[in-house]
Amino acid sequence: MSLTHRDEALALDAADPLAALRDQFDLPPGIYLDGNSLGQLPRRTAARVAQVVSQEWGVDLIQSWNKAGWIALPTQVGDKIARLIGAGPGQVLAADSTSINLYKVLAVALQLALSDELGSASERRRIVSERDNFPTDLYIAESLCRQLGFELVLADVDEIAGLLDERVAVLMLTQVNYRTGQLHDMAAVTAQAHAAGARVLWDLAHSAGAVPVDLLGSGADFAVGCGYKYLNGGPGSPAFLWLHPQHLRRLDDEAIWQPLSGWLGHAAPFAFTPDYRPAPGIARFICGTPSPLALAALDCGVDTVLAADALGGMAALRRKSLALSDLFIERVQARCAGQGLSLVTPSEQARRGSQVSLRRDEGGYAIVQALIARGVVGDYREPGILRFGFTPLMLRFVDVWDAVEQLGQVLDAGEWRDERFQRRAAVT
Amino acid sequence: MSLTHRDEALALDAADPLAALRDQFDLPPGIYLDGNSLGQLPRRTAARVAQVVSQEWGVDLIQSWNKAGWIALPTQVGDKIARLIGAGPGQVLAADSTSINLYKVLAVALQLALSDELGSASERRRIVSERDNFPTDLYIAESLCRQLGFELVLADVDEIAGLLDERVAVLMLTQVNYRTGQLHDMAAVTAQAHAAGARVLWDLAHSAGAVPVDLLGSGADFAVGCGYKYLNGGPGSPAFLWLHPQHLRRLDDEAIWQPLSGWLGHAAPFAFTPDYRPAPGIARFICGTPSPLALAALDCGVDTVLAADALGGMAALRRKSLALSDLFIERVQARCAGQGLSLVTPSEQARRGSQVSLRRDEGGYAIVQALIARGVVGDYREPGILRFGFTPLMLRFVDVWDAVEQLGQVLDAGEWRDERFQRRAAVT
Repeated sequence: MSLTHRDEALALDAADPLAALRDQFDLPPGIYLDGNSLGQLPRRTAARVAQVVSQEWGVDLIQSWNKAGWIALPTQVGDKIARLIGAGPGQVLAADSTSINLYKVLAVALQLALSDELGSASERRRIVSERDNFPTDLYIAESLCRQLGFELVLADVDEIAGLLDERVAVLMLTQVNYRTGQLHDMAAVTAQAHAAGARVLWDLAHSAGAVPVDLLGSGADFAVGCGYKYLNGGPGSPAFLWLHPQHLRRLDDEAIWQPLSGWLGHAAPFAFTPDYRPAPGIARFICGTPSPLALAALDCGVDTVLAADALGGMAALRRKSLALSDLFIERVQARCAGQGLSLVTPSEQARRGSQVSLRRDEGGYAIVQALIARGVVGDYREPGILRFGFTPLMLRFVDVWDAVEQLGQVLDAGEWRDERFQRRAAVT
Repeated sequence: MSLTHRDEALALDAADPLAALRDQFDLPPGIYLDGNSLGQLPRRTAARVAQVVSQEWGVDLIQSWNKAGWIALPTQVGDKIARLIGAGPGQVLAADSTSINLYKVLAVALQLALSDELGSASERRRIVSERDNFPTDLYIAESLCRQLGFELVLADVDEIAGLLDERVAVLMLTQVNYRTGQLHDMAAVTAQAHAAGARVLWDLAHSAGAVPVDLLGSGADFAVGCGYKYLNGGPGSPAFLWLHPQHLRRLDDEAIWQPLSGWLGHAAPFAFTPDYRPAPGIARFICGTPSPLALAALDCGVDTVLAADALGGMAALRRKSLALSDLFIERVQARCAGQGLSLVTPSEQARRGSQVSLRRDEGGYAIVQALIARGVVGDYREPGILRFGFTPLMLRFVDVWDAVEQLGQVLDAGEWRDERFQRRAAVT
């Protein structure tokens, strides 16, 4: 690329084969570069949620579990997500939060490791992860380690490979780092872990809907992910989980339970029997009664990504995402030179997700606040990191151009030094 | 009572001091006697949910965590629920599902029991519950027993007291039985369990918003409950949990974790540190990111019950609920005499919740379907049980009169024998 005028960005938009996907959204004024934290509102969602509330709940009431198909939503929406992450039908469940799904799946992964030890000389009692993994993953792993006698070993990203040995049960990684935007090569890392006899659990929070993912093709073992980021499912949307079919089969054979054995994961929930008997397949990972409101919103969000299928699918979205973030990096280097910003995200395309993180040792938080006041929404993470997400479904090249121009102006004038931009909010 | 004409029911409605509470709801045609399964749609909910979707999410996006107060919803709604169940502020959390909340709270209860054993000669490794408790409670308890080396001992309701001995760590009961509608005396049962040295965990799924509950006054130890029944929070609504403050304090003192240690239950979630450190107080029971859509709907639902405060509160609701169900029982006995129906729910007021269950050995399921076809919605549970819930917020005496008349007609004519009423739906 290398653009020198705003008109060139407009020309790229005019030629963008994915431009029409933007029409799927109700977009407020401003430039939103935080879809990596909370995806935007699809145009269809408000009406669909209103339908669930006013008609399905309000009028049809309890009969909607059958009549409106509420009971099937967790697996139906799961099947749609499966198409975005290289999984098969019947393998993905939409339910609960990422943290809770991780608890279910990691608990099963650890029990499988314990089961492997029977009649074997090996003892794998380690979970290896990045110290900079998203904290909830580490907290949930820490809890399961306390319960099941495992050890959580954390390391910097470059040290992970060196830790993969005969002591490791599970390598647990988030494919795209939430802070740096760095992307793991799923196939290569999975192969490395398998060579050491470990299984791999991938958190796809910043991958699903953002980068092409091929769970089955890469030989991955387990996955969880988030519904409210690139899948546009809305705040606190249900999350998802996946297990390789070979592991799912072993749960039956070896009477391994996922620990959150709620009634809707029972083989016959409406028999109301006192003894738990897990449902066959992925349905055993359902726990309590799901929220049709939240699942309907997630369904609308996932549809906005699936709409790209006719235009080249995730591969086309990835091309645009990289072009957007390339433009951002290039424009920051040109427009904001000498302003103390450094690039945290790897510049190499193959090593980054759909997010670019910059670092500035002074004023990072305030710069983000000053940008928000100008209508350009990114966010901030310690230490000194300004995060910008590029969601190719609705973002235009001219938005990227304009966002960097705003950043330049905030820095040029030292606008961020204003006292009102220093105050920290409860949620950052 | 003892009414002989429909006009007398209309007169009771005209004199009902709670009649105005019905205006809080958007009610479809028909008579809905299934609020014990899914509460009805409050009038305010659709607009509130639309506001969360279209403005808070659609326009303000990520800033709504602060600006719209999303982050405070789990504890704010929890504080409102606390007022309905005799708990104090800061003691109740609205989050996740009943099953998941039970897992968190029961796990803590069992760890406290294990901690008690240190330096003590006693060993309490039993959870006692009703065989006819709602299955999800038994399934979750079963899972925790497998993990922590406890034993789940089930018995018929009349045998429970005889099982309370020095081996019992936790007595786990649902205050109102989902099938029979039988109500436990919370204070008496809790005292009995305490006398045996056991703690009591109450599932308030069919109590909260239905009968007066006094957790602190009765000396209860733990509680969970449901948002989508008498609290009118909508399908799959977040549930709630409560712990007595003395137990909450011990969690810190003894470094006991609730197992679902997700990031929003961390003492400083936005510090993004790799080590888990539980938040003080009830907030540690938050796990992943909550759904503001679902919590806003629950908030509206809880408000419909709190609206009774000015009219006598839960005590007044209870009086009306008992009057409604007394009328139902009396009318069934009069109008449907000789039709093979027997009363499952105790006739004594002090021993029933807000639901009446009838039994008929033949055709129970089909009778419920025939009633639904006539616009009278109840539900069916094996073996042969017809359930009818009486939600005093919106139900009128004339509705009860008319419902029994419809039931009589279905039985008189043998209408339920029609083939179309025999087909079982997926969800019953």
